Amino acid sequence: MPHIQLPEGVPGIRSLVMYRPDTGKPLYELAQTLLRGDSPLSQAERELIATYVSARNNCNFCTQSHAAAARALFGPDREVVDFVLGEYETAPISDKLKALLTIAAHVQTDARTVSDADVANARQYGASDRDIHDTVLIAATFCMFNRYVDGLATLSPIDSTVYEPMGERLAQHGYVLPATQAPAN
Amino acid sequence: MPHIQLPEGVPGIRSLVMYRPDTGKPLYELAQTLLRGDSPLSQAERELIATYVSARNNCNFCTQSHAAAARALFGPDREVVDFVLGEYETAPISDKLKALLTIAAHVQTDARTVSDADVANARQYGASDRDIHDTVLIAATFCMFNRYVDGLATLSPIDSTVYEPMGERLAQHGYVLPATQAPAN
Repeated sequence: MPHIQLPEGVPGIRSLVMYRPDTGKPLYELAQTLLRGDSPLSQAERELIATYVSARNNCNFCTQSHAAAARALFGPDREVVDFVLGEYETAPISDKLKALLTIAAHVQTDARTVSDADVANARQYGASDRDIHDTVLIAATFCMFNRYVDGLATLSPIDSTVYEPMGERLAQHGYVLPATQAPAN
Repeated sequence: MPHIQLPEGVPGIRSLVMYRPDTGKPLYELAQTLLRGDSPLSQAERELIATYVSARNNCNFCTQSHAAAARALFGPDREVVDFVLGEYETAPISDKLKALLTIAAHVQTDARTVSDADVANARQYGASDRDIHDTVLIAATFCMFNRYVDGLATLSPIDSTVYEPMGERLAQHGYVLPATQAPAN
């Protein structure tokens, strides 16, 4: 049961942006710009970072929904998502992306622990300022979304098949604010 | 030294939104709507929650800048800010605000630990759904801002007097995106 009265049957972040659309608007704009806008990281890589951070925060809704989006975007390479949900060190991903996931992990735990050595390691594998910036902001942003969704105990289905159409929609259409109910007469 | 090339001499979040204005825009809109828009919580109370969460995350820039904004907004009651930076249980604030700070602390640590009892306790002192929602979203949002600012090692002055004009500006004008440099010819 959510801690406050939210639209019934609507899961996770969608129920919250329907509850308060004026904060929902910049939240969805941030997600759309950061995960679908211009970046040296592919959309699939960005969803992978979002999934990884959400898993570290034990946020079921965000982990499952962004894992589904990442799988849809990776297509035939979708197995990398399961690797990253386990031990990313062994995942079939680039050394650059591994180094960025290490930075994301530090941001999730305590952002002050992102060290010069972590950043130098990522640069050694070709990471640019924008790769590093976007990784830190994605990790920070999901530390927010995870807390917003779980702090209000929103609906969070366990069954992973529920998230497959959600992932397809996020992959195809991005972050589109759900329509809110028209006010009652 | 920041981990990436940011505008020189510009501290904290301002350097980051100047570096990437397209994500800066929804970030500032979120702060403005959440901390200055419609809410049952006063602007001073909302800045106090932001300060409290930032202090728990040991983010010097956000703690000092929002403490300065809270002091400017509390006016003659500004001493409450120092109480909340220490032990809020003894602060001269309402029982409702204390109960909301307890919820904010849970969101900062692990949002899944916000319990039905924490919420019932806040309601007992008069907290509404919107009080609880706004508290959780402010706490979650500062878990993002704190990580963004510290994960990229932005400039963070130690001297508290530096933050006084910043706090006055935030109290008077709210969250206004800084102008970015015109592109070079």
